[in-house]
Amino acid sequence: MPAYRIADLFAQRAKNIAPPTYGTELTKIITVSFAYGLADPTLFPHADLAAATAAVLAEQAPTVLNYGPPATLLYEQIISRLQAQGIAGDRNSVLIGYGSGQILGLLPDVFVEPGDVVIVEGPTFLGVVTRFAQAGAKLITIPVDDLGMDVDALEVTLRNLKQQGIRPRFIYTIPTFHNPTGVTMPLFRRKKLVALAAEYGVLVVEDDAYSDLRFRGEVVPSLASLDHEGWVLYVSTFSKIIAPGVRLGWACGDPTIIERLAMFKSEGPVGPFVSHVVARYCATGKLDGHIQKLIANYQHKCDLLLDAIAREFPSDVVALRPDGGFFVWCKLPPDISAKTLLTAASEHGVTFLPGTRCYANGQGDDAIRLSFSFQPPEKIVEGITTLGSVLHQLRQ
Amino acid sequence: MPAYRIADLFAQRAKNIAPPTYGTELTKIITVSFAYGLADPTLFPHADLAAATAAVLAEQAPTVLNYGPPATLLYEQIISRLQAQGIAGDRNSVLIGYGSGQILGLLPDVFVEPGDVVIVEGPTFLGVVTRFAQAGAKLITIPVDDLGMDVDALEVTLRNLKQQGIRPRFIYTIPTFHNPTGVTMPLFRRKKLVALAAEYGVLVVEDDAYSDLRFRGEVVPSLASLDHEGWVLYVSTFSKIIAPGVRLGWACGDPTIIERLAMFKSEGPVGPFVSHVVARYCATGKLDGHIQKLIANYQHKCDLLLDAIAREFPSDVVALRPDGGFFVWCKLPPDISAKTLLTAASEHGVTFLPGTRCYANGQGDDAIRLSFSFQPPEKIVEGITTLGSVLHQLRQ
Repeated sequence: MPAYRIADLFAQRAKNIAPPTYGTELTKIITVSFAYGLADPTLFPHADLAAATAAVLAEQAPTVLNYGPPATLLYEQIISRLQAQGIAGDRNSVLIGYGSGQILGLLPDVFVEPGDVVIVEGPTFLGVVTRFAQAGAKLITIPVDDLGMDVDALEVTLRNLKQQGIRPRFIYTIPTFHNPTGVTMPLFRRKKLVALAAEYGVLVVEDDAYSDLRFRGEVVPSLASLDHEGWVLYVSTFSKIIAPGVRLGWACGDPTIIERLAMFKSEGPVGPFVSHVVARYCATGKLDGHIQKLIANYQHKCDLLLDAIAREFPSDVVALRPDGGFFVWCKLPPDISAKTLLTAASEHGVTFLPGTRCYANGQGDDAIRLSFSFQPPEKIVEGITTLGSVLHQLRQ
Repeated sequence: MPAYRIADLFAQRAKNIAPPTYGTELTKIITVSFAYGLADPTLFPHADLAAATAAVLAEQAPTVLNYGPPATLLYEQIISRLQAQGIAGDRNSVLIGYGSGQILGLLPDVFVEPGDVVIVEGPTFLGVVTRFAQAGAKLITIPVDDLGMDVDALEVTLRNLKQQGIRPRFIYTIPTFHNPTGVTMPLFRRKKLVALAAEYGVLVVEDDAYSDLRFRGEVVPSLASLDHEGWVLYVSTFSKIIAPGVRLGWACGDPTIIERLAMFKSEGPVGPFVSHVVARYCATGKLDGHIQKLIANYQHKCDLLLDAIAREFPSDVVALRPDGGFFVWCKLPPDISAKTLLTAASEHGVTFLPGTRCYANGQGDDAIRLSFSFQPPEKIVEGITTLGSVLHQLRQ
């Protein structure tokens, strides 16, 4: 009798697992990383979160520490933030999740049968888009230019698909301080995008992780605020404005979508403890002041980065200047490959995200994403100086 | 042109959603609920958790509030608790999840193709078992008697299945202070269960939420401590010994299983914040003293419940006396239906879990589960007195 093996019990979907790719590149010692879109950890409002925790545990422990839905106060705080952006939300149109990533990851459960079309931006936030593909979505990439997604190209695509009898399930977009390009879609494109969604009956998923972190320019209305027929699902997070470690994000949209996302969020509601802590902190009114502090910090670091780029990089590297968020996108001249640059830069202790990690369709060797959010100011200048000299060396 | 509807975008699996059944019965005003297996909310260690939060935020905010894996200290605390139970665990054999329910809910992703056989107990914790069925598992129920799962019946079933060429994926069991019966499987049955698992190549999933709450009798070794070939996946939680609101549970087992469960836990690792808080609290050494306090409380309430049952119930209702945990299981005489009793009792403000909500195969109208954990002592006596008079009235 052959010996039984545990591996024989695995379902087909679990037989093979891909080893994680993150980290495997880090065989070099990295002294300056522009790679990750992380908030500045020195700015987390830890004392205020400690005070909020002390308060909720002293006053409401039997509720805060029990099973139950997220704090009612957290719904209220989120709904109030949505209203400030012109988005009407109520308890039935809001889902709270363990980060916006969890909610975005649930979209295929609700919308995607294998082979269904999902429209994404190119470049985009591949961390989420990869999960659409893994769920069997057929991805179609619409280019992003300096004004965000090219909605005219989108219109052509939607029309062509309709002629083939294909109705895409949703369009995933990051219209404000786009990841990875940092660009913001202007109002005229937003209006057209929302109109196209209604015309073609396609959901728009608006990923709005960064819009609170505007350090210049005029506020542009969210897609959700322009939509009055339920064709926009708005998704945001506390990860960039409070701290990612609390793992809290939210979606706001049509209640029939929200209840289905909640159904596939199979472990149940987010923890009462963390939701009460964050709600209490928000309710102190200190969050807006904290965001102002973040904005000043990120603006300073963004400008440092842009100034250093202007000083150190070859003049034919084109850096896009963002009005907020975490990222500067640099278009490389034709003779420089992002992958080659990454290899050379890591030899000198500097890393970043190559554009190839931002496209679902294999493009991107012509650009790189630099995150200025995470590194302290002196490291930013040091890193760009190094990267500049590597760029010049590659030309020799 | 017909108007587009959002509902047309839903995948087949999301088209119809079942309305939640919990709560719809509660049209009566309930004054005493024995229905839910909830920890006593007056006993949550809120002051110590507040102190732990203050400490980790003061000392480690940049880590505690950032993205990242659960606290290393939490792994150490869990591994140390496992070792105290004779279970060898390390970082690669432990998964931390948002409650043990999340981890149990991930089992079908790793193990179940539609039609695969999963073996469950009858009665059992239907909250988890329902999810196995929803994932397409074919459930086979093995009866539970006063010594837990009938492993002789299990052996017959495994043999019959093998003759049909069927290898079940896993056996879900709650061997200690069983939910809903409160019974504990003795050592001789545990040894046989583990031997059967190895003989037939079937995983045993040991749900051990309650074993720390033993208030009498000898400790019985966990199934996982008896297994040396990886056929037991052990699952436990902080929900009963600290607080469910922190949403932290864990599994320990074969690393190939653990890495697959982690892969299907698609929102990523549990939040650093809550994991650091709970780890710090555990590391103070206060948890064991806290558990002793819980045990004294639950023992007192269990004995109050059993005494009241002996006094108030008809003598042919058989209440099983647990050595720990949250539940007393009452077998009703043949002339009394659990459903009829529930309807009558709710008219008088008392509720409980009918046995029908504890079987995957439609049985259970001959028994009820009474949770003594949640209600204060005076409510327990009041509730049992009322329930006793309802039982007597049903006989008139």
